Amino acid sequence: MRLSELGEFGLIETIRKATPNGQGVLLGIGDDAAWVRCSSNSTLITSDLLIEGVHFDLQWASFFTLGYKSLAVNLSDVAAMGGRPSYMVVSLGIPAGFSTEHIQEFYRGLQSLASETGVGLVGGDTSASKRFFISVCLLGHARYGAIPRSGGKTDDDLYVTGTLGDSALGLELLKTGRGKEKRRHRAYLISRHNCPTARLKAGEILAKERLAKAMIDVSDGLLQDLGHICKASGIGAVVWQEQVPLSPACRSIAAQKGFLYALTGGEDYELLFSSRPRDRRRLERIQGQLGVPVTRIGKCQPSREGIKVIGPNGKPTDIAAKGYDHFKNRL
Amino acid sequence: MRLSELGEFGLIETIRKATPNGQGVLLGIGDDAAWVRCSSNSTLITSDLLIEGVHFDLQWASFFTLGYKSLAVNLSDVAAMGGRPSYMVVSLGIPAGFSTEHIQEFYRGLQSLASETGVGLVGGDTSASKRFFISVCLLGHARYGAIPRSGGKTDDDLYVTGTLGDSALGLELLKTGRGKEKRRHRAYLISRHNCPTARLKAGEILAKERLAKAMIDVSDGLLQDLGHICKASGIGAVVWQEQVPLSPACRSIAAQKGFLYALTGGEDYELLFSSRPRDRRRLERIQGQLGVPVTRIGKCQPSREGIKVIGPNGKPTDIAAKGYDHFKNRL
Repeated sequence: MRLSELGEFGLIETIRKATPNGQGVLLGIGDDAAWVRCSSNSTLITSDLLIEGVHFDLQWASFFTLGYKSLAVNLSDVAAMGGRPSYMVVSLGIPAGFSTEHIQEFYRGLQSLASETGVGLVGGDTSASKRFFISVCLLGHARYGAIPRSGGKTDDDLYVTGTLGDSALGLELLKTGRGKEKRRHRAYLISRHNCPTARLKAGEILAKERLAKAMIDVSDGLLQDLGHICKASGIGAVVWQEQVPLSPACRSIAAQKGFLYALTGGEDYELLFSSRPRDRRRLERIQGQLGVPVTRIGKCQPSREGIKVIGPNGKPTDIAAKGYDHFKNRL
Repeated sequence: MRLSELGEFGLIETIRKATPNGQGVLLGIGDDAAWVRCSSNSTLITSDLLIEGVHFDLQWASFFTLGYKSLAVNLSDVAAMGGRPSYMVVSLGIPAGFSTEHIQEFYRGLQSLASETGVGLVGGDTSASKRFFISVCLLGHARYGAIPRSGGKTDDDLYVTGTLGDSALGLELLKTGRGKEKRRHRAYLISRHNCPTARLKAGEILAKERLAKAMIDVSDGLLQDLGHICKASGIGAVVWQEQVPLSPACRSIAAQKGFLYALTGGEDYELLFSSRPRDRRRLERIQGQLGVPVTRIGKCQPSREGIKVIGPNGKPTDIAAKGYDHFKNRL
C-alpha cells in the first residue's frame, strides 16, 4: 500500500500495533510524549542520524538492515559509556514513493534488535521528505557510572574488542559487486557492515569492574576515534600495527591492505578503551565474560608524542587518521 | 566561515563551547552519549522533526527562529502531558552551502528558549544533507503523573488555552507579503507563528491539581487534535464556534474567516483539555496561576455523536477537520 493512502496517522497506528509495550512503559507510541519509568537516575542519552546518500545507499541496504543498523549504532554509543540501553524514539523522513511495506520492513529490523537488547520503542515522528533519513534517540542507564573519553592517562594500555576493518571492507564488497573471493568470507564481511554488534555486555562489565578508564566506540575509524580519546584525555598514543586484530575473512580478502581498513575504515562499532597496566591480570581473568575477545593494541603516551602507528619493522609508519568528516571532504 | 573549512568536529566543538553545562549534566556534548541525573524516575520522551520545504521555508524563517521553534514545539508536547522539560539532544542535517554563522544563529535561538525553560542541551548529531532538517528529542519529568489523550469522558467540559488561529494566519501573512493590515497585528500574528509559547506552567498546574483528564497540544488544528482526543478516549465532542477564543489581531485581519483559522489552522501550540464539570469552580479559582487565559469551548459527548461544531445560529456547521497529514494531500 502507498503511504499516501494510509496517511501519517494510519502509519503511526500500524507501527503502534506492531510494537510491544515493554517493561516500564506507562504510555508508549501515540500520545504527545512517551511516559516511562527509568530504573536509575543516572541516565544516558545518545542520538544518531542515518541519511540516504550519506550513510547508506538503498541500492545495497535493505529496509530490514537499515532498521537493525540504525538501532545498533546507537546501542554502540551506550556500550561505549558502559551503560545499558532502555528506551528509544525513532523519527523518519520518508520519500513520497515509499510503500507501507518498506516502512514495516524497517521496523521489523529495528524491533528484532530491540527485543534482543531489551529496548522499548516508545515514540518518534514521521514526515514526508525528499530523501529517506532516520533519526534515533536512545536512552540508557549507567548503573556503574559512565566511562568518558577523557579518562586516559600516559602509560595506560590500549585495547580493542573484536576485529577491525571488516565493515569498511564489507562496504567495499557491496559497492564493487561479486568478485572471486570466497563466499563465506564475503558474507561475513557484508554482515559486519549491515548488522554490526554493539558490545553492550563488554561495555557494562568493563564499567562495573572499573577496568576501562577512557572508552569510545570505533565508528569513524580506529585512528580517528583514538584521536578523540587522546584529545579529550590530553594524551598521545602508540598503536602496534601487527597487534591490531583482523578477522580471517579480512586477512584472506584484503591481505596487506587489511591493516589500512582496520586502522582507518569506519563503522566497526567495536570498543576502544584504555586500562591501567596494573589491571592487566584482572582484565585477563574476566575476558571470558565479555562476549567478545579483547586485544591489547598499544599504549597511551604523553601528548607531545601525538599518535604513532608502529609497523612490523618496529618503526613508525606514515598511516594517518583518514576517518570520515561530514563537512570536510573525505581525505 | 564555510562549514567545509570548520569540519564536523570543529562544529561540534563550537556548539559545545557555546553551551552552558546545566544542572544535573554529568557529561554533556562531546562524548559517545550524554550522562545526566534525572530528578524523578517518571520520565517523558518526545521528539519532533522540522524539515525544510515541509515544515518551514528558509525564505521566511530565520535561523534564530528555527532554533527557537524547534525546541518550542517539543516543549509543547511535554506541556501537553503535564510535565516539566529537562534535557534535549538536537540532530541537524545541514546542506553543504551553509555557513558556520547560520548554525550558530540556529543554536542562539535554541539556547535562548532553553535557558528560559531550564532545558539542558546535552548532545545530538550533525551530518551533511541535501535539505536542512532538525530532529529534536526532549526529555521531561511528570512529577504529578502524565495526562494522556485517552482520559476524556462523556459530559466533560472542553477547554483551550490562549487564542487559536493566530499561527496559521501569521504564516499566511508571511507567504503573501505585506498587505494593508495594521502593523502591530501583523507583527503579533507572525510572532505567534515563529515563536510559539509552550504552555508549560498551565500544563503542570493542570496535572498537579488533577483538573485535566485528557490533554493534547493543538499542533495539527483544533478539530484534528480534538479528533485525536476523541479517538483515544472513545468519545465524541461538540464545539461552540462562538466560544472559540480569537485574538484581536485575528479578528481584525481575518474577520469572519478567523474561525476557520482557529478551527482548522495548525501550530497554535495551545493546550486542549477535558475537565469534569464538577471541577469548574476549582478551575476558575486557579486560572490566574496558569500564565494564560483558559476558555471553555465545548463538551465531550458519546462517541456516536462524532465531532460537531455549533454555529452562531445554534445549528451544526459543516466545518470539518482539515489538519495536516504528511502523507496524504492537504485537503
